[in-house]
Amino acid sequence: MSAYDIPRLKARLGGMKIEENPAIVKQKSRDFFWYSPVLKRQLDHVTGDIVVSPRNEAEVIEVLKACFDEGVPVTPRGSGTGNYGQAMPLSGGVVLNLADLNKVKAIGRGQVVAEAGAVLAAIDKETRPGGEEIRLHPSTYNTASIGGFVAGGSGGIGSINWGGLRNVGNVLSLRVVTMEANPRILEMTGRDLMKVMHAYGTNGIITEVGIPLTAAYDWIDVMIGADDYMSAVRFADLVANEDGLLFKEIATVAAPVPYDYFLRHQKFLKREHSIVLLMVAPHAMAPLLDLAAHEKVEILFRSDTATDAKKKGLPPLFELTWNHTTLRGLRVDPSITYLQVLHPFPNHVDSIAKMTALFGDEVPGHLEFIRFDGKVCASGLPIVRYTSDDRLDEIVKIYEDNGCPIFNPHRYTLEEGGMKRTDAGQLAFKREADPKGLLNPGKMIAWENPDFDLNSDKVYLFPGMQAAE
Amino acid sequence: MSAYDIPRLKARLGGMKIEENPAIVKQKSRDFFWYSPVLKRQLDHVTGDIVVSPRNEAEVIEVLKACFDEGVPVTPRGSGTGNYGQAMPLSGGVVLNLADLNKVKAIGRGQVVAEAGAVLAAIDKETRPGGEEIRLHPSTYNTASIGGFVAGGSGGIGSINWGGLRNVGNVLSLRVVTMEANPRILEMTGRDLMKVMHAYGTNGIITEVGIPLTAAYDWIDVMIGADDYMSAVRFADLVANEDGLLFKEIATVAAPVPYDYFLRHQKFLKREHSIVLLMVAPHAMAPLLDLAAHEKVEILFRSDTATDAKKKGLPPLFELTWNHTTLRGLRVDPSITYLQVLHPFPNHVDSIAKMTALFGDEVPGHLEFIRFDGKVCASGLPIVRYTSDDRLDEIVKIYEDNGCPIFNPHRYTLEEGGMKRTDAGQLAFKREADPKGLLNPGKMIAWENPDFDLNSDKVYLFPGMQAAE
Repeated sequence: MSAYDIPRLKARLGGMKIEENPAIVKQKSRDFFWYSPVLKRQLDHVTGDIVVSPRNEAEVIEVLKACFDEGVPVTPRGSGTGNYGQAMPLSGGVVLNLADLNKVKAIGRGQVVAEAGAVLAAIDKETRPGGEEIRLHPSTYNTASIGGFVAGGSGGIGSINWGGLRNVGNVLSLRVVTMEANPRILEMTGRDLMKVMHAYGTNGIITEVGIPLTAAYDWIDVMIGADDYMSAVRFADLVANEDGLLFKEIATVAAPVPYDYFLRHQKFLKREHSIVLLMVAPHAMAPLLDLAAHEKVEILFRSDTATDAKKKGLPPLFELTWNHTTLRGLRVDPSITYLQVLHPFPNHVDSIAKMTALFGDEVPGHLEFIRFDGKVCASGLPIVRYTSDDRLDEIVKIYEDNGCPIFNPHRYTLEEGGMKRTDAGQLAFKREADPKGLLNPGKMIAWENPDFDLNSDKVYLFPGMQAAE
Repeated sequence: MSAYDIPRLKARLGGMKIEENPAIVKQKSRDFFWYSPVLKRQLDHVTGDIVVSPRNEAEVIEVLKACFDEGVPVTPRGSGTGNYGQAMPLSGGVVLNLADLNKVKAIGRGQVVAEAGAVLAAIDKETRPGGEEIRLHPSTYNTASIGGFVAGGSGGIGSINWGGLRNVGNVLSLRVVTMEANPRILEMTGRDLMKVMHAYGTNGIITEVGIPLTAAYDWIDVMIGADDYMSAVRFADLVANEDGLLFKEIATVAAPVPYDYFLRHQKFLKREHSIVLLMVAPHAMAPLLDLAAHEKVEILFRSDTATDAKKKGLPPLFELTWNHTTLRGLRVDPSITYLQVLHPFPNHVDSIAKMTALFGDEVPGHLEFIRFDGKVCASGLPIVRYTSDDRLDEIVKIYEDNGCPIFNPHRYTLEEGGMKRTDAGQLAFKREADPKGLLNPGKMIAWENPDFDLNSDKVYLFPGMQAAE
């Protein structure tokens, strides 16, 4: 299927770090797409031809220049912690592994600049001596790269304070290399950032990211229990709106998910427990406990007073949240999957109550409380007890019919997994920065098939995808 | 009128720092009550008999014990920066000046404990080397004491992030001395704090305050101009809801107040300029400028790039906000006064537009954007071109009839200046901690006259107030 010549490309990239062992190349061509039974079927066979690991920006440019000349597709990769096949090379070619671009370049008060491949936890390790840390991170904090997060993520732990990555001010600068005969280096700030953020690397290769920092604290992990899910939700919403209390994370998980799936925490739980998961600033702990007592919810675990014996083997609490909730479920029951749904302000609590009653145990609740346009609302990542694609689509439709937008994690394109509309700025920038359409092919429908109707019920299938064997 | 014997009291307080020069005592018996023409008439003659300045908590106890025995009223005083006669001794007696209790006792990550008389700016001076500062402060930051702020304030600069002082978590602990035969020292936390916070010292003497800290930045003062007031308001509301931008202060002031009253900033202004006043984190500055350009508002001043010549003689921007706006107005035109009004979420912008149109230049707008129960709304401190008490009352009524609660700064009692209802917790605590009713007499109607109807149109006049000469 490929019109390109990999051996010739390799010859041009002499001295570059190249991996061609097919098993390793396939492994480095994957992310956590398999959370979705739909994507698992569609993408399981996908693999690049080779993995190239540039050591610096000059080598990135060298790879892009050579691939442009040779007509070889290039799919950039951070740590491969995405869930939508963001970093999967649908047309094969080069997987551009940016993990070796991992330097923290500059730390200032309130901000840090790091190379795209720098792991989030590693960046924080360097900023914490100055009392600051990254505002937002996914639950894959310990492995995810900053470049991958900006190119394929949306928010996470910290979103209760700062909203999402796309909010003005949460990314300050990007260095982007274009895919042209003579790749250019662009320094982007302000509104321009939106051209390449959350574009899956379809229109430029991010080599450096500048982000703001916030005060670092020794966050206390707290697990709170309630006998019914809506009590947990109401408590979470209450504390999320307490302006004087500082949290880094507020989530709720409905019974029996915590007991059944959070195996290392099972000792603190009953199967009937729905829970609130909190990361609490130490100075917010006393007022929180006072509030919890007043609201008659039960503290099941707090990391600040737990003995070492109790804490032994426990993952950090944030590794029970966001897509780690799903991951822990999949480890116990590989037949489950999940959705991503927004319960918009101001009716989020009522909306949650309605959907909880409607779906029961077919869709056990999991919510992440976030700030959205200045208000607290809830982003749901409910577990779905998957039975068929049709039923999954039906569940999506029921949510949408009830005023809850779905960001479908069972689609690999930017548009279908996102806002279901063309991003004109990203498309225009792809025309400019990737005229041959070689970057991460198949992910931007607006480029591949401008006539595709995003509001039809049809699923977009990239015609250039490599055939399954 | 006094049933007490000041010479005998003085004899008991040998060795204590006592001031009895009538001019100085009168000066130390006042606050900024004179912003209100109503309070000015009612309270101008009020003075204590002596000012006692304890050097430590043991001396506070000694004073309270002696005054209890002798039946002498005691009115605590921080720096006298209140605006409602909070610290004015309506029945004379002792003004308890706590300015010498000014030690910072303990600084921890995220929190500080200081004696009640410590000036806010002085506390920050000690915490800033650790990268942190106080969350909330009034515009009188450079002179106000932490004890006075907690006893008589409500919020201020920082409230856009943290809400008000009464929000759970914004005060962590208080040490309170009771007014009894044998004064007790109480250590308060959690819900108990509400018993003495914003009680004007009517039910206990605060000697020590524990408060949370937040990240300190070199905040940039920014003044933005718009040609009509509602454009300024809409821009302020927009940026206040941008989750990724960090501000410490967001205010709007309607033309011609900025030009007419902010004399040192006049050189940056035209008389038609309505303005937005911002304290901006350095790392939020670039995205803010990008947004301002997009919204077509004009940057009139920014402290980070202004030359020293331009900045010469300028007060810090926060000294144009909150009640400093009023103060600057009064310096130019002593006939003006102000009100305090809430424009509640979610209709605050419409409500502001309506009231702006209704009152025109009789009540030029001044708003402080704050977080309130998790949402951004606006607290108004409009300038009022005062003509008569009747018209002032009429203006109050028009606001209230339009769904805007008024916190009336022309009343000296807790209830009338506040929520117009009895605070049962504060009253119960006064019974326990001040059984003789000697602390700051006349300020708590629930104590002085439980039968007074707070919802009548009548103004409460404390019968125990010393007669004007």
